[in-house]
Amino acid sequence: MQERIHEWITLHRSAGIALLQQMVRIASTQGNEKEVQLLVADQLHGLKLDVDMWEPDGEGLAGHPYFCSPRNHFAGSPNVVGVLKGAGGGRSLLLNGHVDVVPEGQRDQWQHDPYSGEVTGGKLYGRGATDMKGGNTALLLALGAIQGLGLKLKGDVIFQSVVEEESGGAGTLAAIVRGYKADAALIPEPTNLRIFPKQQGSMWFRIEVKGRSAHGGTRYEGVSAIEKSIVVIQHIRELEKERNARIKDPLYANNPIPIPINLGVIQGGNWPSSVPDTVKLEGRMGVAPDEKLEEAREEMLRWIGRLKDVDPWFAEHPPGLEWFGAQWVPGSVDPGHPLMEVLLQQYREVKQEEPVIEASPWGTDGGLLTQLGETPCLVFGPGITQVAHYPNEHIVLEDVFVAAEIIALTLLHWCGLDRMEA
Amino acid sequence: MQERIHEWITLHRSAGIALLQQMVRIASTQGNEKEVQLLVADQLHGLKLDVDMWEPDGEGLAGHPYFCSPRNHFAGSPNVVGVLKGAGGGRSLLLNGHVDVVPEGQRDQWQHDPYSGEVTGGKLYGRGATDMKGGNTALLLALGAIQGLGLKLKGDVIFQSVVEEESGGAGTLAAIVRGYKADAALIPEPTNLRIFPKQQGSMWFRIEVKGRSAHGGTRYEGVSAIEKSIVVIQHIRELEKERNARIKDPLYANNPIPIPINLGVIQGGNWPSSVPDTVKLEGRMGVAPDEKLEEAREEMLRWIGRLKDVDPWFAEHPPGLEWFGAQWVPGSVDPGHPLMEVLLQQYREVKQEEPVIEASPWGTDGGLLTQLGETPCLVFGPGITQVAHYPNEHIVLEDVFVAAEIIALTLLHWCGLDRMEA
Repeated sequence: MQERIHEWITLHRSAGIALLQQMVRIASTQGNEKEVQLLVADQLHGLKLDVDMWEPDGEGLAGHPYFCSPRNHFAGSPNVVGVLKGAGGGRSLLLNGHVDVVPEGQRDQWQHDPYSGEVTGGKLYGRGATDMKGGNTALLLALGAIQGLGLKLKGDVIFQSVVEEESGGAGTLAAIVRGYKADAALIPEPTNLRIFPKQQGSMWFRIEVKGRSAHGGTRYEGVSAIEKSIVVIQHIRELEKERNARIKDPLYANNPIPIPINLGVIQGGNWPSSVPDTVKLEGRMGVAPDEKLEEAREEMLRWIGRLKDVDPWFAEHPPGLEWFGAQWVPGSVDPGHPLMEVLLQQYREVKQEEPVIEASPWGTDGGLLTQLGETPCLVFGPGITQVAHYPNEHIVLEDVFVAAEIIALTLLHWCGLDRMEA
Repeated sequence: MQERIHEWITLHRSAGIALLQQMVRIASTQGNEKEVQLLVADQLHGLKLDVDMWEPDGEGLAGHPYFCSPRNHFAGSPNVVGVLKGAGGGRSLLLNGHVDVVPEGQRDQWQHDPYSGEVTGGKLYGRGATDMKGGNTALLLALGAIQGLGLKLKGDVIFQSVVEEESGGAGTLAAIVRGYKADAALIPEPTNLRIFPKQQGSMWFRIEVKGRSAHGGTRYEGVSAIEKSIVVIQHIRELEKERNARIKDPLYANNPIPIPINLGVIQGGNWPSSVPDTVKLEGRMGVAPDEKLEEAREEMLRWIGRLKDVDPWFAEHPPGLEWFGAQWVPGSVDPGHPLMEVLLQQYREVKQEEPVIEASPWGTDGGLLTQLGETPCLVFGPGITQVAHYPNEHIVLEDVFVAAEIIALTLLHWCGLDRMEA
């Protein structure tokens, strides 16, 4: 059976590349996901799945404790779910991938147009190639092989093509609220074919550092919010060190900073010859797989409170701390979970080597599926973590086909084969 | 004569306060100076001066080596010059004050409306009260006393009410190009009645610090431009130390940082969970009275070039340096200059104490007058340096009247009295 699946996928390589190229050429940044979702829906119809396409109800979701999005309206940003009903008597599997991509950044840092989907040297280039339209392509190829070879499964397969992963998971939340669940789940985020049973969560924060304005020519009469923000940045580095020293999970053994605190945005002052009175810092706090978002928030708040011991300025002028924008719930699945066993076995069959098992260095929608959706989720996919959110993002096409093969076999062995129809 | 001038000014205190209040109530930020200039022109007509009002020719000035402005068009931003022709045989004096004010900043940091001109406890509040409509009021009161008492001077008096001091001196440059000059000049910038024969110059610069983007969850795979900008900021602090250690002029003895380098603006990154690849710093470099702008620019460029010895990252990714926006030419007048002698004597007469003589901690249009306009310029005026460009800017009204008296007496003794007409 592995041979027939391998053969089918090999025969459909060109079609897979063309599909990925088509998806990358659609710049599906936040709010612009409709075109690519129509393409996905079209593919699912072709595969004879029951297709459900809807725009999440932002107003209705807004009160949900796990809702976190910069927007309340999802017009033009539909979710797509395709269901492949099984014959019965098998375990169900939920496959989930997001179609939203982060902005391309400075275009002059890209060798190719970020939305070209250019193929060269066995790699396909473009924003979203790795994160995660390559993974989505692997899912569609796996489903294609199952259907193309007439393999009737026992358990149900639920394919979710969601929006808004990059800004807090409102797409997957909407799918959970709509009632979709399964015995287990798999998300092919770019793990470079490593297997992640545990996933880091994360949240966005904003810190406002205060100074006191003055004329730049007598700058010693003011207090520079830029200089004070350096103290805050170094203090946060200390918190990052302390939090990471606590991580003993062997799955993070190869990770230099398991749960980083990233400072992504700095902005302060408005006049070159004035001492700046405010600096705003925005960043992302990593949350350990077994940690609660609330615990991490409280630790940050306490830590910022201690700044007054570092510099008495902060006693009178405490920095403001707020949580905004995106958050990703962490997730933790027992490495002995039955889906792990199946996935490991198929990996060994196809790759003829031992897989790398780690904890993910970033959040995915898998945390929501595991914690809220009662669907334990593993993360495993093609694509190179290092180029996600990066100029010259690309994917090694061979890995897309390998992942598709492993996922098709996992479907077969997890859901069970009822009969061959062709 | 001092007594009669003192009496005249005392009698006209209310009128002086009302005039200052009227000027402060006009928010004459860059591009919005016309209304206050019409008011000044009206005052000069009332004082029987020959009035010249014109909009600087931005296109014509643009090629001038001392031209520095964010704009090339001065429609709505006229200069006003009033000339009081002397009887002949005396020295001429140029009085110069600017009417443009910097923006008010965050309104919630102001106790009073920034354009209220509110008077309380002997102080008048508002943007521009100190910098420098209070000084302008002192000039107009001094001229008022001369004319009101019928004192016919021998030398000419040229009163300049200019635009654009806060952004590089294009107003005063336009007046110089138009041909106005004199044997000496006085600018009543807010020195808190100290006398500044020397003035710091300054220039605006922009530094672009480069990093390498990456996903925040694997931030160790990128290079944070925020962290690299901290290295740059600390390196610039070292340059500031080195430059200031060279300043031996006793006039700067009481100044903790004679020629500061102020970092006023920081801006970098655009996504909380991405490693930022660029940070932009904007600041103001102080230039010593006897230093050339070009020398200071070269020193900064060399210093930034040395960053590669501090951190090898900068060898491959040198920060960009550019000069933009405003610049103020430094100025240096011999403390033994004859106008110094006259001013010191009148100060002692009126205040019955020794004046403080220092070098200014900031640039004024005096540098242009001294270096380019062949008119050696002293800076002396009411108003508190510390509140310039600051919320709750205000001026002690008593100092406005004291300055007016000293300036009126200086006119009398510098230009010489021909006769009394009244």
